[in-house]
Amino acid sequence: MKIAIDVMGGDFAPQELIAGAKNYLQNDGEANLILVGDEKVIRELWVDIPDKCEIYHTDEVVEMGEHPLHALRKKKNASVAVCARLVKQAKADGFISAGSTGAQMAASLLELGKITGIERPAISVMLPTAGESGVLLLDVGANVDVRPSHLVEFALMGSAYYEKICGVEKPKIGLMNIGEEEAKGNELTKTAYGLLKDSSLNFVGNVEADHLFQGKANVVVCDGFVGNVLLKTSEGLSELIQGAIFKTAMSLGEETLLQLKKSIKRFNPSSPEYSAAPLLGVNGVSLVCHGKSKAPVITNAIKLAVNCAKSNYVDLITKELTQNQK
Amino acid sequence: MKIAIDVMGGDFAPQELIAGAKNYLQNDGEANLILVGDEKVIRELWVDIPDKCEIYHTDEVVEMGEHPLHALRKKKNASVAVCARLVKQAKADGFISAGSTGAQMAASLLELGKITGIERPAISVMLPTAGESGVLLLDVGANVDVRPSHLVEFALMGSAYYEKICGVEKPKIGLMNIGEEEAKGNELTKTAYGLLKDSSLNFVGNVEADHLFQGKANVVVCDGFVGNVLLKTSEGLSELIQGAIFKTAMSLGEETLLQLKKSIKRFNPSSPEYSAAPLLGVNGVSLVCHGKSKAPVITNAIKLAVNCAKSNYVDLITKELTQNQK
Repeated sequence: MKIAIDVMGGDFAPQELIAGAKNYLQNDGEANLILVGDEKVIRELWVDIPDKCEIYHTDEVVEMGEHPLHALRKKKNASVAVCARLVKQAKADGFISAGSTGAQMAASLLELGKITGIERPAISVMLPTAGESGVLLLDVGANVDVRPSHLVEFALMGSAYYEKICGVEKPKIGLMNIGEEEAKGNELTKTAYGLLKDSSLNFVGNVEADHLFQGKANVVVCDGFVGNVLLKTSEGLSELIQGAIFKTAMSLGEETLLQLKKSIKRFNPSSPEYSAAPLLGVNGVSLVCHGKSKAPVITNAIKLAVNCAKSNYVDLITKELTQNQK
Repeated sequence: MKIAIDVMGGDFAPQELIAGAKNYLQNDGEANLILVGDEKVIRELWVDIPDKCEIYHTDEVVEMGEHPLHALRKKKNASVAVCARLVKQAKADGFISAGSTGAQMAASLLELGKITGIERPAISVMLPTAGESGVLLLDVGANVDVRPSHLVEFALMGSAYYEKICGVEKPKIGLMNIGEEEAKGNELTKTAYGLLKDSSLNFVGNVEADHLFQGKANVVVCDGFVGNVLLKTSEGLSELIQGAIFKTAMSLGEETLLQLKKSIKRFNPSSPEYSAAPLLGVNGVSLVCHGKSKAPVITNAIKLAVNCAKSNYVDLITKELTQNQK
């Protein structure tokens, strides 16, 4: 098992990417790693690289402001493109990147291609709930204008992923909507409701955003605009509330602060437990990390990549697609 | 100044509606009140009703499950319809309801009508920010499928409202989007960006959902589907985080719990500070309260209704519309 890491992408690259990889191996991580990036820089930051970790040298990188497709055309060996290519060539079993999401999507599509039958790959994130298990939300930004049939695709992909990664058979699928009744919503969701009801999936109906966190459904689908707004609302509000609480808790003593931090850490979608967002629908494991990811998040993302590669959810997506077309 | 209160609508009606009205008058509320509902029930719950409060008897009410328009056609004297009619007839200066939002919208449209030039009235809510002032978000549910020009309408209405209620001249207007750059977003927001840039408004560009709470803009516009998801995400996540914190804080002692409660109370959009959602675009003051509203929220909603009626934002909306058409 080998996981490729784009060490050149992200707000804290390459330091935090390398630190995350180091943590992973020092804590008995089972997979071998391929660090994709500038060898000289990598060796400066990590002098005693173990055997389980190899370097694939490239000094090209897609910068945050660049147009993904233009950049990838010019930079054939951009770190993110190399990562995707390693997966394509079966030299790696999956890859993670914290660089430009657009570039990672483009590189994944160009190198890995789409799973046969999938029209629109989607970015999925695991969100915390009041219960033990998380809820998988997709799409959170890959597709801003979608048709009802795309929401069914998202549901099929999410269902297969959740089943394989969380070990839940026939996961409960919900449709993000602004009311519980079938007739509620906009044109998109009203039509999608009927399609999901008629699908082979375990569709449990509409889910309102305030009920999302109660875990009524395992997987919830929406268009990428709505999903992105939902995800960023969660991030922004979590930070706001945490800030206010910690300010008060500081005056109440260090122990209070620590305990409170611990109690709500898992509710921020950008915390390590929710480390990476699988790009579902491309023909291989491609995990999107937040640009702000630091070492603990990267370590967890590597673990998730290993689980993803082992689970072979890509095959299950193909199987679910066939079943649904019957 | 007279405010009409639909005491029959809401999860805790009529008790909490009446308790809220009582609180308002007992704390030297300046306006006179008209309680619209079943006189017998009202008198049982409030035996010594003061002179500043009159009762308008009706025993008809639109139930939560009913189709708003069908219900209003059958029940000419539904409490919410009576409230809107009192405003129309200038017997009240504004009204509040915690009943079915759909019924309140329909009653407001039927009785008050739209402001000339407004095609789509919108529900607006004030959300908390890290700073002192809130951010007004609209639409949060009245219009699920909109055209770019409707977002400009929302911006005009929101600008006029914010200027009058928060005393900020030329409020900063933002467009809810999934990226900061002009070219980001879906078809709706890309077109709306150009229209807003060319408008007479103080447009500050795209606002991402995680920056919403930082207060970069005073007013942020989006379609009602996105706005509703954003609002409910905030509610759901606030409750989830508060629950986790209070559970930990309880074991740390009552004083800790109290202080923490105080520090984050204002971040839940359904807290009293953010008591009611003005329905902008109808020709009169119509404030939507959450169905779960209890007495403190109702008291604050009455205060907000008084401010709204005094401010005469309805006239400013008309003026802004004319200016923008020049």
